[in-house]
Amino acid sequence: MKKAEDFSEWYNEIVEKANLTDKRYPIKGMNVWTPYGWKIMQAIDAHIRHEFDSTNHNEVCFPLLIPEDQFAKEKEHIKGFDAEVFWVTHAGLNPLDVKLLLRPTSETAMYPMFAIWVRSHADLPLKTYQIVNTFRYETKQTRAFIRVREIHFFESHTCHADLEDAERQVKEDYAIMARLSKKLCIPYKLLKRTEWDKFPGAFYTVGIDTLLPSGRSLQLGSIHQYKENFSKPYEIKYEDEKGEHKYVHQTTYGMSERLVGAVVALHGDDKGLVLPPDIATMQIVIIPILAKGAVDQVTEEARQLQKDLKDAGFRTHLDERDLRPGAKYYDWELKGVPLRLELGLRDMEKEQVTFVRRDTGEKSLHPRTHVVDEVRKMLSTIAGDMLDMIQKEMDANTVTVDTLDNLPGKLIKTGWCGGEDCGREIEARSNKNILGTPIDGEKFEGVCVICGKPTDKPVYLADAM
Amino acid sequence: MKKAEDFSEWYNEIVEKANLTDKRYPIKGMNVWTPYGWKIMQAIDAHIRHEFDSTNHNEVCFPLLIPEDQFAKEKEHIKGFDAEVFWVTHAGLNPLDVKLLLRPTSETAMYPMFAIWVRSHADLPLKTYQIVNTFRYETKQTRAFIRVREIHFFESHTCHADLEDAERQVKEDYAIMARLSKKLCIPYKLLKRTEWDKFPGAFYTVGIDTLLPSGRSLQLGSIHQYKENFSKPYEIKYEDEKGEHKYVHQTTYGMSERLVGAVVALHGDDKGLVLPPDIATMQIVIIPILAKGAVDQVTEEARQLQKDLKDAGFRTHLDERDLRPGAKYYDWELKGVPLRLELGLRDMEKEQVTFVRRDTGEKSLHPRTHVVDEVRKMLSTIAGDMLDMIQKEMDANTVTVDTLDNLPGKLIKTGWCGGEDCGREIEARSNKNILGTPIDGEKFEGVCVICGKPTDKPVYLADAM
Repeated sequence: MKKAEDFSEWYNEIVEKANLTDKRYPIKGMNVWTPYGWKIMQAIDAHIRHEFDSTNHNEVCFPLLIPEDQFAKEKEHIKGFDAEVFWVTHAGLNPLDVKLLLRPTSETAMYPMFAIWVRSHADLPLKTYQIVNTFRYETKQTRAFIRVREIHFFESHTCHADLEDAERQVKEDYAIMARLSKKLCIPYKLLKRTEWDKFPGAFYTVGIDTLLPSGRSLQLGSIHQYKENFSKPYEIKYEDEKGEHKYVHQTTYGMSERLVGAVVALHGDDKGLVLPPDIATMQIVIIPILAKGAVDQVTEEARQLQKDLKDAGFRTHLDERDLRPGAKYYDWELKGVPLRLELGLRDMEKEQVTFVRRDTGEKSLHPRTHVVDEVRKMLSTIAGDMLDMIQKEMDANTVTVDTLDNLPGKLIKTGWCGGEDCGREIEARSNKNILGTPIDGEKFEGVCVICGKPTDKPVYLADAM
Repeated sequence: MKKAEDFSEWYNEIVEKANLTDKRYPIKGMNVWTPYGWKIMQAIDAHIRHEFDSTNHNEVCFPLLIPEDQFAKEKEHIKGFDAEVFWVTHAGLNPLDVKLLLRPTSETAMYPMFAIWVRSHADLPLKTYQIVNTFRYETKQTRAFIRVREIHFFESHTCHADLEDAERQVKEDYAIMARLSKKLCIPYKLLKRTEWDKFPGAFYTVGIDTLLPSGRSLQLGSIHQYKENFSKPYEIKYEDEKGEHKYVHQTTYGMSERLVGAVVALHGDDKGLVLPPDIATMQIVIIPILAKGAVDQVTEEARQLQKDLKDAGFRTHLDERDLRPGAKYYDWELKGVPLRLELGLRDMEKEQVTFVRRDTGEKSLHPRTHVVDEVRKMLSTIAGDMLDMIQKEMDANTVTVDTLDNLPGKLIKTGWCGGEDCGREIEARSNKNILGTPIDGEKFEGVCVICGKPTDKPVYLADAM
């Protein structure tokens, strides 16, 4: 398992060995969530729920199936998804009168209902989200968590009285992503997609992109400003204070199980997974080091240690299997548990516990009496260091260029005037995708790499995963 | 809204007025979970997760779609579901080589994988569960939560070395249901279904039945002993200690969003929902009674009260809307919040809080200093009383008969020899369904109502919902 040698093969192997998902289900790209992987996904979902609940979004759950006629209302949208939807044509032994599709995303399921729910300005903003599975008939090669046909998906959908309020929502979404990134220990860039790469039906799309060790970019999610593009065909209107009827402005924010894929890809190493403490299935594993004659004594103390840490709210596992400590270390390193606690007779005599960090392998000794505080501090340090490390790698793998010749397999930054002709020429000559222009006001002074016009905005390019 | 006059209409009206679900989605029987209803469902799911996690079941999540050839392996099973599955026949613009169906239940999705996962006796018991949506093309009239085409569903699936261990599992499932019933405040009977009414493919089926105010029975869930009926066609085998290859014995336990329907139907009254405290979206609503000149003072104290209760872990809402208290009472009674706390200037002077129970309407005064403990006690009392009340109603609506003439619309108990001919004759003559024989060893001395043979087992009959 050499990550540096063949990233792609390493990724597949580690997903399988750590038993995060089972790809042997008899439909390609539809995998089974096994208990260990599902717990990680649920921990991520819990952080997402917390973020959206505390920003006054309401969780809903819409039906999976969408009637063909509802789906067809927004023309760009249907064009974008037409080739990749699954169709239900029969029920029982009979053909259906109206064909139904499995949601590829839920705009066309939700918006006919929003048109009923929104009546007056008092109903706005309407802020909803759901966590459901979506379906896309991927024709490219599938990859666990990253490109699958049944996708564990988060989507928020909001309606606003005007563009100003909708833009405020987009900014709230950016702030939510900033907080989630700390839990996931994943750095990212917010990049506004080109006109020809935006979400089908969107007014604009901001991609949330990270960079894989292979030098390819990975879209973690996206935030969309729809303006009135959907509210017009779906007739989502409200009566304002003056009694005038107006179309709402809408936004969405989508993320998926790719977040798990990104965690695996960015943090894993040749020994296995390295899980961020906030989403780890188990945060701490305790390994008792049993010397002859002290088995009961050490076991008892290890159980007390587990109890203390569990009571303090840490997801803690005590490994009492009849195996050598070395074999246990190997297993839990593969599984990516962020912190290993070793406890032997000598530790007990010195009233200490040995900590071993999964991310750095570093060992340290900590007083038994303060172990809860020390664990809390250590997990926080691990999370911070994990994010920093990948942020530094991402920065190191970003290069600014003023020519498109001989580009390395990295994240490329260059000048672009913003014109479509020059943009398409950049993509053709670089043989990479334009990810977009940064939305955070990143300073740039240069010229368009194609036409030479001065520009104060850079553009990022990469090979997409 | 008169529950006693027209139960069916009352049910539909209350579901709509309390905004638990929205039935206006453009596919019949596929409803939208609105935030209030979804929170109740999630609270129920949390209790279910807790029960199954603490009995060493592992949560998994299997794909929604099942290939036709996998589905067809167990002959009885496919016969049972053939008429009600949704078929995916196309992906993108092309027909699929192998048709896929939307799971009506997950045996045929899981068992090909279990055949891979189970190798040796050390892999047993395998105890898994998942919470997913299932799909059945209901041709009968649909009803929110009770008969829908997209069903929020819980299912546990276990594999065991022998029948003895599988039977132990069935008993563990009974114990789980007993604990859940206390959270839901729903009484039930465990009734072994007849051979001609068991789950397609099962060795035997135990229905979990409750009785609606209309006198009809409602199946809350079911527990199945499969024996080797599925492990043989799906080849789920293990090697025992002696190196012999044996088929596993399997069980399942299924429940659904019907639990929400049962709570609505059993506990609701003419004022609206009455939610059991353990699953209520909000457990407590605080209504400040604002007298002139004391608005700030009462508001401040009401906020402190909310904080104290939230900090103690209660789901607490403070209603600060600019409305008369009476209008607020009306709203929260409709929404079924179990406990209302009223706080006015007089209460503050007397250092007390007024409690009003939703289930009985009873008012009581409690010292402000002990409010957290008093609320805890009161919610526990409410839960106990709610279960007792419905249990008494169920008992009162159960009648033992020795003739099938002029049966009332209640739960009927009578004697049955156990023979299929007599059983079918009972159903034909009573025009009711046999729910089954009780599994808890309920004493009975009598004769079969058809053939007159002495029997020590009663059988229960009812009109099914």
